[in-house]
Amino acid sequence: MAEKNRKWVLKSRPRGLVERGNFEWKEEPLPAIGDGEFLVRNLWLSCDPTQRGWMERDTYVPAVGIGEVMRSVSAGQVVESKHPGFRAGDLVSGAFGWQDYAVSDGGGLVPPMKTPAGVDLATALSLFGITGLTAYFGLLDVGAPKPGDTIVVSGAAGSTGSFAAQIGKIKGARVVGIAGGAKKCAWLTHELGLDAAIDYRSENVAQRIRELCPKGVDVYFDNVGGEILDAVLAKLARGARIVLCGAISGYNDFEHMSGPRNYINLIIYSASMRGFLVFDFVSRFGEAIADLGSWVKAGKIKDQLDVMEGLENAPEALRRLFTGENLGKQLVKIADPSRA
Amino acid sequence: MAEKNRKWVLKSRPRGLVERGNFEWKEEPLPAIGDGEFLVRNLWLSCDPTQRGWMERDTYVPAVGIGEVMRSVSAGQVVESKHPGFRAGDLVSGAFGWQDYAVSDGGGLVPPMKTPAGVDLATALSLFGITGLTAYFGLLDVGAPKPGDTIVVSGAAGSTGSFAAQIGKIKGARVVGIAGGAKKCAWLTHELGLDAAIDYRSENVAQRIRELCPKGVDVYFDNVGGEILDAVLAKLARGARIVLCGAISGYNDFEHMSGPRNYINLIIYSASMRGFLVFDFVSRFGEAIADLGSWVKAGKIKDQLDVMEGLENAPEALRRLFTGENLGKQLVKIADPSRA
Repeated sequence: MAEKNRKWVLKSRPRGLVERGNFEWKEEPLPAIGDGEFLVRNLWLSCDPTQRGWMERDTYVPAVGIGEVMRSVSAGQVVESKHPGFRAGDLVSGAFGWQDYAVSDGGGLVPPMKTPAGVDLATALSLFGITGLTAYFGLLDVGAPKPGDTIVVSGAAGSTGSFAAQIGKIKGARVVGIAGGAKKCAWLTHELGLDAAIDYRSENVAQRIRELCPKGVDVYFDNVGGEILDAVLAKLARGARIVLCGAISGYNDFEHMSGPRNYINLIIYSASMRGFLVFDFVSRFGEAIADLGSWVKAGKIKDQLDVMEGLENAPEALRRLFTGENLGKQLVKIADPSRA
Repeated sequence: MAEKNRKWVLKSRPRGLVERGNFEWKEEPLPAIGDGEFLVRNLWLSCDPTQRGWMERDTYVPAVGIGEVMRSVSAGQVVESKHPGFRAGDLVSGAFGWQDYAVSDGGGLVPPMKTPAGVDLATALSLFGITGLTAYFGLLDVGAPKPGDTIVVSGAAGSTGSFAAQIGKIKGARVVGIAGGAKKCAWLTHELGLDAAIDYRSENVAQRIRELCPKGVDVYFDNVGGEILDAVLAKLARGARIVLCGAISGYNDFEHMSGPRNYINLIIYSASMRGFLVFDFVSRFGEAIADLGSWVKAGKIKDQLDVMEGLENAPEALRRLFTGENLGKQLVKIADPSRA
């Protein structure tokens, strides 16, 4: 066990891209636990676009305070426990932050909570965690695709997008992915089996959507917002459902983020645009994890991990989401589990 | 019967406010009817914001062609018929346009189609026509208010808005109306019984919404778009439903219409924004007209008419919708029914 707790605290609120300078590195003694608490050794950090929002302003959760440890979901191992529900060796996921060790009373856990036997911790943060569940409920419950529908997914080479796109294929839809760069687009069609991919860096997205979706878009799973959202709004099918999962294109300049001017087409096409939070579906997480597990087993869904090593590199790992360098789920590996 | 058919045809597409100069007055011989057709004497024209769109561009229907009679819903009387389903004297509503007489094969009729006995034609164009049905299905089916919900209605002193607001009260919600000017606001609270009104011309709408809807807005029935839509998006209740009925604030400068930048709050509040067309609900028009009729009978809903006389004044009547001069349903009265 490390003698100290290394951590990144928030030093300043970002303007534009997340910078290493927005964080301050600290090394402190290990925290002590009280009755009803346990100590977690963080092993993996999850990088998620929403963390950019947490650094800047109150959203669905309060902003991270200046001087507070950077908030993130992570997966780790209980190393000491005075909590009746947890014991040393348990593998858990929670909002433990960018640090080696965290104290928990069990309140900040996130699915899959305790990691089931046979599932590695990286997958627990990806397909079986918030990421996979967000794709599952967003696509299936909010998007409600029917077999034969045309689904468009933006951020399709990112983790949530890649799961949403694959779930769309599993459900019998035609799926068009949008991603940045030829390599990602080739991965979408060759590795994930999407019907087509649009490279937003080199292609005219609005024109390609018109070509690839001549009957209009039935379901749009939106991770990016901005011009791509407007391009899809320009080519809706009647009764289209837009699933608002994120708007990463606007996160770096939230104050000047513009709205989708083509939203008026929602009227013309009797279409809807709906936001959601994965925790709206908490009572059905078990059902989703069972489905996702069966699809992995059957080879129908791939969980692509993009791993950076070392807690000291967490700022760079988070930044990759906004420069588009990651393919699939961006993680930071901090340590290996102990062989308790 | 007049000897000639007076009509307004579209001369040029509007830029900004609708102008009389966008139309050209023509006088032509009465049209002849063939087998399966009937001739309608227009008596009332309906003025609707959507007509501004029809003048400019293709939407859910093709744009009106230059040189074609201006499209509008109107109510009239059959004066001659070679159609088995219609006979002289029948009162009908349809897309008969800005002219004294129209030929129909029965295809362009709109609800309530044939006007029932005891309903005057003006009411057929208002509460029992597209206007009332749009309010009914938009508020009840798209907005789905629950008793005790807080509903905000923009354009609340217009026809559709005033019906939506009153239906909200009938269903046990708290209703806040937004309108332009003290007179309209007083009408909303004193005459229609709304819980509160906001004068967008003299008040800070965003601030007033925060004050009047401390728990957030559950249902927003939007007729206007623009800054008011953004103000509501800034104060949503969890699970809020935004009913997109129109966006009149943008119709005069569609090319520069901006989108709602606060749409991102749809994610934070698990909220939705849904457009609709009244014809999505065509199979249920009868049910709606029965409800609306019973509410009128019980004195629970008022149908405020704003009437301008004379076909020659149709351009000015339409323009009133965009200057905000109308209170309730803007109509043009062309002629009285014959005493056949």
